[in-house]
Amino acid sequence: MDELKARILAEGQNLGHGILKIDSILNHQMDPLLMKHMGEEFARRFADKHVQRILTAEVSGIGPALMTGLVMNVPVVYARKQKPLTMSGPVYLEVAPSHTKGGEVLLLVSAEFLHAGENVLVLDDFLASGQTIEKLVRMVYSAKANLVGIAAVIEKLFEGGRERMAKYGVPIEVLVSISEMTDDGRIIFAN
Amino acid sequence: MDELKARILAEGQNLGHGILKIDSILNHQMDPLLMKHMGEEFARRFADKHVQRILTAEVSGIGPALMTGLVMNVPVVYARKQKPLTMSGPVYLEVAPSHTKGGEVLLLVSAEFLHAGENVLVLDDFLASGQTIEKLVRMVYSAKANLVGIAAVIEKLFEGGRERMAKYGVPIEVLVSISEMTDDGRIIFAN
Repeated sequence: MDELKARILAEGQNLGHGILKIDSILNHQMDPLLMKHMGEEFARRFADKHVQRILTAEVSGIGPALMTGLVMNVPVVYARKQKPLTMSGPVYLEVAPSHTKGGEVLLLVSAEFLHAGENVLVLDDFLASGQTIEKLVRMVYSAKANLVGIAAVIEKLFEGGRERMAKYGVPIEVLVSISEMTDDGRIIFAN
Repeated sequence: MDELKARILAEGQNLGHGILKIDSILNHQMDPLLMKHMGEEFARRFADKHVQRILTAEVSGIGPALMTGLVMNVPVVYARKQKPLTMSGPVYLEVAPSHTKGGEVLLLVSAEFLHAGENVLVLDDFLASGQTIEKLVRMVYSAKANLVGIAAVIEKLFEGGRERMAKYGVPIEVLVSISEMTDDGRIIFAN
């Protein structure tokens, strides 16, 4: 997705240790039109999968997932990282390591929003080590829903997430792949 | 906004103590098309305000703010509640009491995303006590930006937020107003 690549090159910062700062377009500020284009692209790539629901995680997955849901016209569920007072009833619960915050984060999804037999697309902002996405995938399995695909806005090829996800046997679609983030601050794309 | 009112009546739950659960359409699962309609309505109401940026808070403000930003074609900034590793440089920092989580939450906005002289619309999911929204307003003031309006999807009239916000002298627009949440579980709208 050339538009996104150009924005990452113009505005992204390689903070070292594989940390990519793209706060101006995704993780703190959002460009709604760019995000709509992301949604259109994801919808195109999963057009034959009969997606019935999208599962993402708060916070930064919400924007891309919402726009993809808009184009696909399906509901979007975001895993909560804390239990709000309004969350009553049974939940699917997973614990994931946090790459950008340090430590661990909870991922909670109310059982009422994942249905057995339904086609679910898991979508997040980054596919890095794949650990967060894998926890979302586990929730889909726990609910006996059908995982039909894995989507991420940005892949960091050097963190092994794609290998980790291969065993699930579903299409993995990313909008841009970063093959290297060099010590001297460059961001190198694979495609 | 009749569509939203109907959905709240059909799917919302009055959990007592003024807590409204609308996890199926806003706070955990999102209906993208309904949210798009919210965005169109907010854009209509603030059409003459020359909004240049929208400021909201994670998590539940993101969806409505993003859709409003899409219709208005302006960037959307969401205050973070934790400092991610990617947040470097100066920030505007406020501390707000949390209604649905208990305790206090931080609100952090990078100084690079609030500009002096710019017209900012503050938009959140709920206008209840108004304490979270007021913290966002204070950030707009701290940045010497122009507050041009306050928007919320749902107002709880009985929690005093509108009175708290009156001193800022800007239009306050909400899509639905709840006047009462009764002990026997009803949700009563003001309009």
